[in-house]
Parts: sequence; C-alpha cells; structure tokens
Amino acid sequence: MSDATAPHPFDDALELERLSPGTYIGRTSAPYNNMVGPFGGLTAATFIRAIERHPDRLGDPISLTINFAGPVAEGEFEITTRAVRTNRSNQHWYLELSQNGEIATTATAVFGKRRETWDDDEATAPAAPAPSELELGGFPEFIAWARNYEMRFAAGALSEEKSEDSTITLWVRDTPSRPLDFASLTSIADIFYPRVFQRLGTYVPAGTISLTIHYFATAEDLKTQADSYVLAHAQSRRFHKGYFDQSAELWGSDEKLLATSHQVVYYKV
Amino acid sequence: MSDATAPHPFDDALELERLSPGTYIGRTSAPYNNMVGPFGGLTAATFIRAIERHPDRLGDPISLTINFAGPVAEGEFEITTRAVRTNRSNQHWYLELSQNGEIATTATAVFGKRRETWDDDEATAPAAPAPSELELGGFPEFIAWARNYEMRFAAGALSEEKSEDSTITLWVRDTPSRPLDFASLTSIADIFYPRVFQRLGTYVPAGTISLTIHYFATAEDLKTQADSYVLAHAQSRRFHKGYFDQSAELWGSDEKLLATSHQVVYYKV
Repeated sequence: MSDATAPHPFDDALELERLSPGTYIGRTSAPYNNMVGPFGGLTAATFIRAIERHPDRLGDPISLTINFAGPVAEGEFEITTRAVRTNRSNQHWYLELSQNGEIATTATAVFGKRRETWDDDEATAPAAPAPSELELGGFPEFIAWARNYEMRFAAGALSEEKSEDSTITLWVRDTPSRPLDFASLTSIADIFYPRVFQRLGTYVPAGTISLTIHYFATAEDLKTQADSYVLAHAQSRRFHKGYFDQSAELWGSDEKLLATSHQVVYYKV
Repeated sequence: MSDATAPHPFDDALELERLSPGTYIGRTSAPYNNMVGPFGGLTAATFIRAIERHPDRLGDPISLTINFAGPVAEGEFEITTRAVRTNRSNQHWYLELSQNGEIATTATAVFGKRRETWDDDEATAPAAPAPSELELGGFPEFIAWARNYEMRFAAGALSEEKSEDSTITLWVRDTPSRPLDFASLTSIADIFYPRVFQRLGTYVPAGTISLTIHYFATAEDLKTQADSYVLAHAQSRRFHKGYFDQSAELWGSDEKLLATSHQVVYYKV
C-alpha cells in the first residue's frame, strides 16, 4: 500500500528547514501526534536529527537529555543547536525548541567517536516469546503516533486491570518498516505509555518531564539491526508525590543492548 | 576533633559568591578533589546549590543532568544559571560552569513543587547487612574527596581481583556527619568508583561524561533521613566501544528510595 517513492512518514515528520548553521524550522506532524501535542519520542528524535544535520557535528549520539518544559502547539517550531564544547573525541550540545519566542523544550546531548576497547555485555535481555508468537497489539486509535509502530506485547499491554507490577515488555518496529537509525532508536526509547496507567488500570493526567537516553549502538550495530524488531522493556521504581521514574532497555534482535532510557514523569491522582 | 563553630567542609566547598542574580563565582576545594580536578558529585551539588540560591527558584530538585565537557582546573570558576521556563508547578533550568571563558560543564535541571498523590514503592532495597556489621572501607588515600565519606561496603569494595559482576552496594554518609540535604544527596549519587575498575580489577582511564539524577525525596523526607546512612547501590549493563553505563539507587535508612542516578562513562582499555 505504501508508495515506494514517497519518504517514510517518520522522515517526513523529521524534516527541518535550515535557517542558518544550527538553526532550523520544523513543523509538527499529525501522524506523530500524541493526545496533546507531538509524541515526545519524535521531539527527541528531531533534536538528534538537528545535530546530525549540523555541519560541525562530530561522531554519533552517546547521550541525550530532553526536558519537556511546556506544550508544543500544532504548527511550526524553531530549533537552535549550539556546540558548547568540542573535544578530540566528543562534543557537547545544548538545544532549544521554541514557538513564538517561548521555549517549549530544552536538551543537552553528547556526541562522540567510538573506539575498540575491552567490551562486555553484563546485562541480559528479558525473556520474551518470539514476535511471531505474540499477537499484534497497540494503543487506542486516538493515539496517532502509535499507529506508526508495530507492537507485540509480551507483558504490559494496555488493560483496565490494576497491576502490582509496572513492567512492560514488547517487540516493536516502525510500520511501514524502516531501517533503524539513531533518530528512530531515540523515538522508540519513549514508546511506553505512562507506567502509572498500568499500575492503576486507568488513564490519569501524566506527562514526561525529563527523558535521558544513553546510546550503546554504533552506526554499524544499527546496520546489523536493520528493520528487525527491537525488544523494549521498562519498569518504574517509585511513584511519590506527583512524580515517578521509568527505566527502559532497548535490545536488538541479536540480544545486544542498543540503548537505555530513564525518565521522570509527572502524574496527578 | 571537629570545630563545632566552623562550617562543614562540604558547605565550605559549596560556597558561592553572587555576582548577579543567577551568576556566581565558586572555587575548587582541595578536600573534594578527585585524581584530576574536582569530584564530579561536588560539581553536581554546586549546580543544585546555585539554583537553590537563585531568588526566582521554585520548589525542590526533580531532575538534574550534568555533562562533563572538559576538565576543571584548580581555582575559581563561574556558574551561570538561567530559568529557561517557569510553569505553575515546575521550573526548567540551564546552567554552565566556565573558567577563563571556556565552558567546562553544562547542566539542565527541573525543580518543582510536589503534591499529595497515590504513591507506591514498587522497587525494594537491595539486601545488605546493617552498617554496624560491616567494616569501614574507602578509597586509596590519594582520592581526597572519598575521605569525606564514611563507607561500609556490602559488595564491590575496591579490589585487585577481576569480577564478572559490576554490582556495588555500600552504606555511606558524610564524615563528619551532616544532615542530608539536596546538595549532599546529589553528591552521593556520584559516590561509586568507575565500574570498569571493578570488572577489570585495575585502574584504567575513565571519566563520567553525563550524569542524570532523579529525585524522589522531598525536603521532609530528607529531614526524616537526617544524618543516617544511605544505602547506595549501582550496576552497569554494557561496556561497549569506549563507553559504559551505570544505574544507581540511593535508599534511605527507612528503605525508601531517595534518588536514582544514571551515568555514561568514557573508558579506554
């Protein structure tokens, strides 16, 4: 059904017009809208893409922290990127997303070159049936962005049952399929619905305040992954006086850890 | 032995001279030096203190991400703090630490007010013997900052043995004792020596690139904690091509989670 000559909706959504080196105009994309405003994972991916397009960019993503300071309205936004400091093997960035002169989102990022080292995979991937053994799941129709992801839940599918456990484990990939790159890995790091919904079996007001992603995968690792499923796993530790945490792991199809993400989420119950 | 009228060395080290609202001059403090430059936990704490001293500050720390962009030399440094956006219940900050006009460290922080909500402690504290059952441990004499902490290791004491497991668990508190506040909690979030040392049983070049702290404790929770031991626990997931991660939990003496920290660390082996 997809037009092979048209760009993937994800690449469409990430499109940026360059005003000057480091300053870009973007536009919210209806297919990646959340209930209110754009999907946070897409905004994070847009920051990564903005740095990737910067002529002075050194290396690939090592870490990103994005702070959701205010709502993003439908329409145009401006992104500014500033290389705060460039070292021999890494580079530190500060970014802002604004609309009508008001800052809606900030971020810091570290990009860097990687080198051969002593390596070890200490953590192991969570147990999960193969994607083919799991039914296609998803979110309600009104969560537009979720329709761009094929999701097969091993644990934590949306439910109206209360749960004592916030653990969610699912296989996920873009649909239509698309080879994984740093931008789409970034977006998938925010794929989980708020863990408080799972605990309470109901929607409550909740929104990510700050999201940190640590990248392990190199560009070569992403080539190996290609458009295969990512095993995405997340859990919360504590819900306390209006904020809860969520730590997530994103595993490649070869059981290698591609990235982790850690967020703090506002909630009201 | 301590002079009851003198400020605690930690408060000494955090002292800031205000140049203008939001701009401060600080000075590195020999008792909190690391092998090269200041202890990263102290720099993180200094950022928290700088925001706390800002006349426009709203609420208490919710999250902090600090990026170690370059070395900090002994002597004076300047910290600038900017409230990027202030909402009704939270506030977003961007901070820089510079020396001679060159940026050495950046940070973003979210401060906020907390409210009564449905709360739950989902994670549980790691098992560890009581502090009184563990011997006093520590770091080698040349790691100055470590002498300001009483450390009692349940797992992961410094050793020249290789280990298959990066897990470290210790009871820690300031010495001389000092009631826990947000600044000292921040500093303790970086108390762990690089996990790669533990895995390899030897020192290798390593340094934190980016450190994120998520705060659960309220000011009242910290009052309850007072100067009791904090149970600090950390582990790495993956060591890959020059970078590894470390996630940490800081538990109060009442088995409540006070904060988590997540860092990405550069290494060369």
